[in-house]
Amino acid sequence: MKGKVVLAYSGGLDTSVILHWLLEERGYEVVAYTADLGQREDLEALREKAIGIGASKVYIEDLREEFVRDFIFPAIRANAVYEGRYLLGTSLARPLTAKKQIEIAKKEGAVAVAHGATGKGNDQVRFELTYHALSPGIKIIAPWKDEEFLSEFQGRKDLIEYAKAKGIPVRATKEEPWSSDPNLMHISFEAGELEDIARRPRESMFEMTVSSKDAPDKETEIEIEFLKGDPVRVRNVTDDTVKEEPLSLFEYLNEIGGKNGIGRVDIVENRFVGIKSRGVYETPAGTILHIAHRDLEGITMDREVMHLRDSLIPKFSELIYYGLWYSPEMEVLRALFDKSQEHVTGSVRLALYKGNVIVIGRQSPESLYDQGLASMDIAGGYDPKDAAGFIKINALRLISNTLRLRKDVSKS
Amino acid sequence: MKGKVVLAYSGGLDTSVILHWLLEERGYEVVAYTADLGQREDLEALREKAIGIGASKVYIEDLREEFVRDFIFPAIRANAVYEGRYLLGTSLARPLTAKKQIEIAKKEGAVAVAHGATGKGNDQVRFELTYHALSPGIKIIAPWKDEEFLSEFQGRKDLIEYAKAKGIPVRATKEEPWSSDPNLMHISFEAGELEDIARRPRESMFEMTVSSKDAPDKETEIEIEFLKGDPVRVRNVTDDTVKEEPLSLFEYLNEIGGKNGIGRVDIVENRFVGIKSRGVYETPAGTILHIAHRDLEGITMDREVMHLRDSLIPKFSELIYYGLWYSPEMEVLRALFDKSQEHVTGSVRLALYKGNVIVIGRQSPESLYDQGLASMDIAGGYDPKDAAGFIKINALRLISNTLRLRKDVSKS
Amino acid sequence: MKGKVVLAYSGGLDTSVILHWLLEERGYEVVAYTADLGQREDLEALREKAIGIGASKVYIEDLREEFVRDFIFPAIRANAVYEGRYLLGTSLARPLTAKKQIEIAKKEGAVAVAHGATGKGNDQVRFELTYHALSPGIKIIAPWKDEEFLSEFQGRKDLIEYAKAKGIPVRATKEEPWSSDPNLMHISFEAGELEDIARRPRESMFEMTVSSKDAPDKETEIEIEFLKGDPVRVRNVTDDTVKEEPLSLFEYLNEIGGKNGIGRVDIVENRFVGIKSRGVYETPAGTILHIAHRDLEGITMDREVMHLRDSLIPKFSELIYYGLWYSPEMEVLRALFDKSQEHVTGSVRLALYKGNVIVIGRQSPESLYDQGLASMDIAGGYDPKDAAGFIKINALRLISNTLRLRKDVSKS
Amino acid sequence: MKGKVVLAYSGGLDTSVILHWLLEERGYEVVAYTADLGQREDLEALREKAIGIGASKVYIEDLREEFVRDFIFPAIRANAVYEGRYLLGTSLARPLTAKKQIEIAKKEGAVAVAHGATGKGNDQVRFELTYHALSPGIKIIAPWKDEEFLSEFQGRKDLIEYAKAKGIPVRATKEEPWSSDPNLMHISFEAGELEDIARRPRESMFEMTVSSKDAPDKETEIEIEFLKGDPVRVRNVTDDTVKEEPLSLFEYLNEIGGKNGIGRVDIVENRFVGIKSRGVYETPAGTILHIAHRDLEGITMDREVMHLRDSLIPKFSELIYYGLWYSPEMEVLRALFDKSQEHVTGSVRLALYKGNVIVIGRQSPESLYDQGLASMDIAGGYDPKDAAGFIKINALRLISNTLRLRKDVSKS
Repeated sequence: MKGKVVLAYSGGLDTSVILHWLLEERGYEVVAYTADLGQREDLEALREKAIGIGASKVYIEDLREEFVRDFIFPAIRANAVYEGRYLLGTSLARPLTAKKQIEIAKKEGAVAVAHGATGKGNDQVRFELTYHALSPGIKIIAPWKDEEFLSEFQGRKDLIEYAKAKGIPVRATKEEPWSSDPNLMHISFEAGELEDIARRPRESMFEMTVSSKDAPDKETEIEIEFLKGDPVRVRNVTDDTVKEEPLSLFEYLNEIGGKNGIGRVDIVENRFVGIKSRGVYETPAGTILHIAHRDLEGITMDREVMHLRDSLIPKFSELIYYGLWYSPEMEVLRALFDKSQEHVTGSVRLALYKGNVIVIGRQSPESLYDQGLASMDIAGGYDPKDAAGFIKINALRLISNTLRLRKDVSKS
Repeated sequence: MKGKVVLAYSGGLDTSVILHWLLEERGYEVVAYTADLGQREDLEALREKAIGIGASKVYIEDLREEFVRDFIFPAIRANAVYEGRYLLGTSLARPLTAKKQIEIAKKEGAVAVAHGATGKGNDQVRFELTYHALSPGIKIIAPWKDEEFLSEFQGRKDLIEYAKAKGIPVRATKEEPWSSDPNLMHISFEAGELEDIARRPRESMFEMTVSSKDAPDKETEIEIEFLKGDPVRVRNVTDDTVKEEPLSLFEYLNEIGGKNGIGRVDIVENRFVGIKSRGVYETPAGTILHIAHRDLEGITMDREVMHLRDSLIPKFSELIYYGLWYSPEMEVLRALFDKSQEHVTGSVRLALYKGNVIVIGRQSPESLYDQGLASMDIAGGYDPKDAAGFIKINALRLISNTLRLRKDVSKS
Repeated sequence: MKGKVVLAYSGGLDTSVILHWLLEERGYEVVAYTADLGQREDLEALREKAIGIGASKVYIEDLREEFVRDFIFPAIRANAVYEGRYLLGTSLARPLTAKKQIEIAKKEGAVAVAHGATGKGNDQVRFELTYHALSPGIKIIAPWKDEEFLSEFQGRKDLIEYAKAKGIPVRATKEEPWSSDPNLMHISFEAGELEDIARRPRESMFEMTVSSKDAPDKETEIEIEFLKGDPVRVRNVTDDTVKEEPLSLFEYLNEIGGKNGIGRVDIVENRFVGIKSRGVYETPAGTILHIAHRDLEGITMDREVMHLRDSLIPKFSELIYYGLWYSPEMEVLRALFDKSQEHVTGSVRLALYKGNVIVIGRQSPESLYDQGLASMDIAGGYDPKDAAGFIKINALRLISNTLRLRKDVSKS
Repeated sequence: MKGKVVLAYSGGLDTSVILHWLLEERGYEVVAYTADLGQREDLEALREKAIGIGASKVYIEDLREEFVRDFIFPAIRANAVYEGRYLLGTSLARPLTAKKQIEIAKKEGAVAVAHGATGKGNDQVRFELTYHALSPGIKIIAPWKDEEFLSEFQGRKDLIEYAKAKGIPVRATKEEPWSSDPNLMHISFEAGELEDIARRPRESMFEMTVSSKDAPDKETEIEIEFLKGDPVRVRNVTDDTVKEEPLSLFEYLNEIGGKNGIGRVDIVENRFVGIKSRGVYETPAGTILHIAHRDLEGITMDREVMHLRDSLIPKFSELIYYGLWYSPEMEVLRALFDKSQEHVTGSVRLALYKGNVIVIGRQSPESLYDQGLASMDIAGGYDPKDAAGFIKINALRLISNTLRLRKDVSKS
C-alpha cells in the first residue's frame, strides 16, 4: 500500500473505474468522498457502490447549507455572471467540494487527492487550484491527465469494458446524448449532441424547469427580502408560503422558478483552458435572485459605487469561473464587493410568469430614492439652475477639444 | 428682433408655450425643429401648430435611418446597457436630435438654440453637452433652468393657462398620470404615478408591447444575420419575411418583438444630475438584437477580447447615458469597441415567446468554436497533459500565498 | 446679526478681506478657523490678525498628526498619484480642513461655513463637497463665486484697497509672481509667471528642497520599515537617527529629502472643473515613501492583487483629487486597497542622492520572493516541464485566432 | 536528417551547446539565427562560431530600426510600464525576434524552431506564444524544458564540459556573478548575486549608464519633439546636435542619458510563470522618452481620455510582459491607445542631470492648455458662478448618502 488517497467520487462510471484503478493499478487505499450539493442522488446507494468497488471508507458530506450561504449568496451579492450570461452554478460548487476533500485528506492522513474531471474542462482547474491553494504540496492524481490511464482508457467503451471485467456495476439506463451535472444552484448540460451549436436542445433534456409553454397561465407573485445583499426571506404572495433559511429559501425558489420555466440559458462560453464550449444551464432560483438583487441595488446603492462595482463584475465572475475562489485577488475583490452591499437591504416584489421574472415593486428602509425629492429639500433643495452650471463646467473639456479640432482643420 | 433661435419642438404643451414665450417675451424669431425619430406622431399637424403659434419656419427632419444606423447599431455592437438593464433608447436619440439642431442653427444663422427639457433630468445634459461640443460658444436657451421662466411657470397649470390665454391649442385628451417619450428604439415612461416605486405600472400604459399574457401561444422563430457586429438581415423562419435595411429590419423586429411581449424593463436608475429616478421602458427590437448579438460574440470573439471589453461596457454605457456621445473619450473607446467587432459575423436563430427571447442556434463563418476541436489538431492537438502544467504554473502564486499565511500563523 | 459663520482663515489678503466683508457687508458674526497642517506660519500672529479684523473667536487646530496618519498614509498605501505624477499634497489636506471646520460649525452653532478658494480651482470643490457630505444642507459662503463679491473685487488691487480702507494689515513683502500653498506633505506653486508653461520655474521659488546641484555629494542612506503598508520607522543608516511616530517620521523625511533635492515635479494637470493648469510641487517625504512602498510591495504583494489594484490607482487618485475623500465610492475602494496592504510589511533601504531615491535593498518577514525557489520545493518544486503545458494551453486561443485569420484571407 | 530547425542563436554557451545538441543528438540540420537588436556584439565572430559548431546557415538580421519604430515607440506612446517601474526592454524585443525567426523558418522550409530560454523565465513564454500565434502547429524545441536535455545538462558545469568535449569554443572571460541581456532599449541583469534582494548591485555591473556620482556637474539640456505620440526629433540645446530618425534619435538618447546616469531601476517583479524575480535594468533613452511623453500628454490630452487610458496601462503593459504582443486583445487595446495619441504632438524641453530627467518646458500646436483661459472666452468664458451649480449637483449623491447614514444611526 502506498497510503491513502481521497477520491472525489460521484458514483458514475468514470469515478467508479478510477476508484478501482487507484486501488488495483496504483496500489492506494481509497477513501471515497461525495459532496452532497443538492444533486438529488441516492447517496446511500452510492456509498454501497463505493464500498463494493473497494473503498476503505466513504464520506458523504452534506454541504448544501454551506453551498448556499457561503458560495451562492456571495455570487448573488456580486451579481456575478460569466460572459454576460452564465450564473456560475458549477464554478461555485467546485471550490467547496475541493475544500472539504482537503479537510478529509488531512483528517485521514491521506497522501493524495484524486478527481475524475476531464483534461479539457474547467473543473480540473477548479479542483486542482483549490487543492494547491489549501494544501500546498499535496499530491494530486488526475487520471484523465495521466499518461497510463489515458492510454488504457480511450473512451467510454474502454471504461465500460473495464467495469464489466472488474465487476463494477454499470447503470443499465441508456446513456443520454449529453452529459449533465446537477447541484442546488443549477443543472448544466454539455457535450454529445449539444456540441452542434446550431441545434436546439431537446425539450426532454431539461430537468429543473418546465418549458415556458407548460408553465401556469397565471403569475406567481413573490416578495424577496434582502439584508446587506443576502436574501433572508421569500414570501409567496398568493399562498403566503414563507421561507427564511438560506437553504429552504433557495430550494423554494428553485421549485417555483422551475414551475414557471425560469432560468434556462444556452451559450457558447470560453473555458479557462482556452477553448470554446457550449453549455446549457437551468438556474431557476439563481436567476430570480439575480434579478431581484439588481433591482434592489437600484434604490439602495450609490451611483458611483455601482458604476465602479459594475466594471469589476467581469473580473469577479472570471475568478469564480477560473477556479480562483481561494486566491488573494478574490480576497481583495470581495472586500470591495462586500463593502458595496452594506445598504442593500429591502424587498422586491416579483411576478414569475412563463420564463419571465418581472419586477413589480420594491421598497427599502435604506432607499436613496427620493419620491418628490423630499430629503433634497432638507439639503437646500434641488435647484434646476444649478444644473446650468453643472452642464457648463462639464462642457468645458468638450469645448476645448472642439476648438482644437477646428484649429487643426483650419491649418490643413 | 434679437435674431433667430432654433427650438427643439415636440408639439407638446411645454415646447409650444416655450415657442410663444421665446417669441413674445424674449423677442426672438423662432425656427421650430422636430426630429422624426420614429415617434409616430402627426408631423404635419405639428408643423401647422408651430406655424400657428408663430414659428417663422419649421424643420421636420427624418432622422430614422441615421438613428438606427449610426446610434442604435453602435450601441448594439457594444452591448451597451446602463446599470445592467437600461438599453439607452432615449440617451441615444438626444445627441442626434441636438446634432441636427446645430446644423440647422448654422444654416439659418441662428444666434441660439433652445430646448424644453426639464432642469432635473438627463435630457438637458445630453442636449446641451452636444450643443457645446458641436458649436462651442453657441447661446443655449433652456427655459426650465431660466429664472424668469421658472417664476412664471410653476407647474403644468400655469402652462395651460398661458396657452389658453395666448390661443395655443391644448390637446383635449386627458393627461395621463405619467410622461412618456417614444422613438424608434423604445418608449420610456416616468413621473406621475410611476414615482411610487412600489407600484406596478398599469397594463394599459404600455404601447409598443403586449403583455406576455396576451402574446401568441406559439413561438415566432427568426434568424438574424450580423456583419461585423451590425444586423444586416432578419428572417422570419415561419413566414419567410425578410428585412435587410437597417430601418426596416429594426421596425420589423419592433413589430414582432412587441407582439411577443418582449423588452419591458422597470428600473430605478441613477441620473447624471445625481438623483435616482424610476423609468419603465419598452425596447422590443433592441432587446432581441442585444441578446442575439451577445450570443454571436460567444462563438466569434476571443476570450480575452471579450473579458477586456466587458469590463468597459459600464463606461461605454455611462458615456451614452450622460450625454457624452460627442466626446474625445467616446472616440477612443469606440476605437476599441469597433475593433472588437471585426469578426462578429454570422447568424443567430431565436424563438420569441411570451416575453422570452430564446437562442436556439447559431453559426458563423468566423467561428472560433471548434466542434471536436478539429482545428486544434492542425496545431498539434489539445493534449490533456498540457493542462497539468498549466494548472501547476497557475497554482504557484497560490501556493506561495498559502505558505506565507501559514508562516504568519505559526509566528502568532 | 444673521448668526455665526465659520471661515477657513489663512491669514492672507483674501481671507482677511473676506472676514471683514462677511462681518460688515453680510452681517455675520465670524469665527475664524485655521488648520495647522504644517504650513509653518506664525499662527499666533494670525490669531491676532483675525481678532483685529473682527473675528469673534479664532480656532487654530493642530491637525498635523491626523493629516499624516489618516490622510497622507492612506494615500501612500494606495500609491496614489494623479495623472501619473502628482502626489496629491493639497488634495489630501482639504477634506481634513473642511471636516474640522464642520465640527467647529456644529460646536459653535454656526449657520454657515465660508472659504476663500477661487471659483476656477479644485479647492473650492474639495471644500464644498466635504461640507455637503458631512453636513447636508449647511449654508456655504464662497465669496469668489458670489456675484456681489465678484463685482466688488475684480482683482488683487481691489482687495488691497479695501484692506487699506478698512485698516486690515497688508503684508509689506513684495508679492511673488506665483501663488504657493504649503503643508506638511508638499508645497504647491501655480499661477503668475508659472502660467507660461514653456518657462522653467526660477530656482529661488523652491522652498522645501534644494536644487540637486546644491545637494550633498554623498549619499544619505536610510531604511524605512513598513507595517501593513504604513511607514512605522525610519532610520538614517549613517548617523543612526531613528524616527517612529507618523509625524516626526514624516517631518524627518521631509528634512533629509529636501536636503537631497528630492520630490520636485512640474506638470500640467487636469482640474475637476474642466481646465488644464500648471502646477509645480515639492514633495520630499511623500516621494521617498511612495518609492519605498512600491518597492516593498514588489516582494510582499501577490501578482494578481497588484495588477488588479494597479488598474484602480487612477480611480483612487482621481477621487482624492476631485475632493471625493468622503464619498461612498471611496469607502468601497478603500476596502479593497486596505485589504491589499495586509502583508505589506518589511523594510526598504534607500540611498538619497541629488534628486534620486535609489532602492538599494529590501527584506520582509512576509516576503513572497523565494531565493532559489526554496519553498517551491515544499510544494513539489518548480518543474520547467510544467511551463511547456502552461504555454501551450495559453497559446490555444492565439492559435484559433490565427487559423481564423488565415481562413478569412484564403476566402478573400 | 529530420529536417531543418531554426535556432535563435546568441553565440553564448547555452545556445552553442544547444546548436550542437540539435545537430548531433537530435539529428536536425540547424539554421542559426541571430537578431541584431543593438546588443553590440561582434556578430561576424558569432556567425563564424555558429558555422564552426555545425550550423548549415546563419542569419544575422538587423532589426534595430524595426525594434525602435514598431516595438519601442508603441510602448512609449502607451506609457507602458510593468508593475509601476519596469519599462519592458526585454519583453518588447522577444516578439520581434520570434517573428523574424518564424519568417526564416518559413523561407527555409524548416520543420521546427528552437530557443535557449530557460524553463523558469518569461522569455520562453514570449518566444513560444509568438511562435504559436504566427505559425500555428509549428514544432517548438525548447531544450530547457526537454526531459533528456535537462537530465544531461544539470548546470553550467555540464555545458562547459560538453562544449570542451565537442570542441565548442568557450569564452575565456571570467563568468560574472549575474546574467545580463542587452539590447537597444536596455540591459537587464538578473540571477547570481542579484538573487539576494537585500544586496545592492555592484557599481561595476552597470554598462549603459554611469553612476550619478560620475555624471557631469552641468545639466544637459535637450528638446524632444513628438508627432502623434512618436518622438521625431531630438535636439541637444547646448551643442545643437539634432537627430531625427527613430534609430539614431534613440541611440543618441541612450548615449546622453547614459552619460547623465539616467534610467537605472532595481525591482522585484512578478513573472508570468508565477514566481517573483529580481531584475535590475538600465534604460536611458526609454526613461527620457517616457517622462517627456507623459509631460506632453499633460497639455495635449483630454482629461477623460487620459484617465480612461491610465486605467488600462497596467493591462497593456501586462500583455507586453506576458508575451502577448501578437494577440487579439492587444489589437483591440492598441486601437484605443493609438487613437488616444492623435493629438500628442509638440515638444518638451528637458534637463538631464545626475540621474534626473527634469521637465523644464513644453509647447504644442495641439495644446489644450489655455493660458489666461483665452479660448474659453470664445465659448462664453469661464464663469465661476457655474462652479457653484457644478459642485452642488455633484454633491447631491453625497448628501443623499449622508442623510441615509443618519437615518440608520437614528434607528439604531
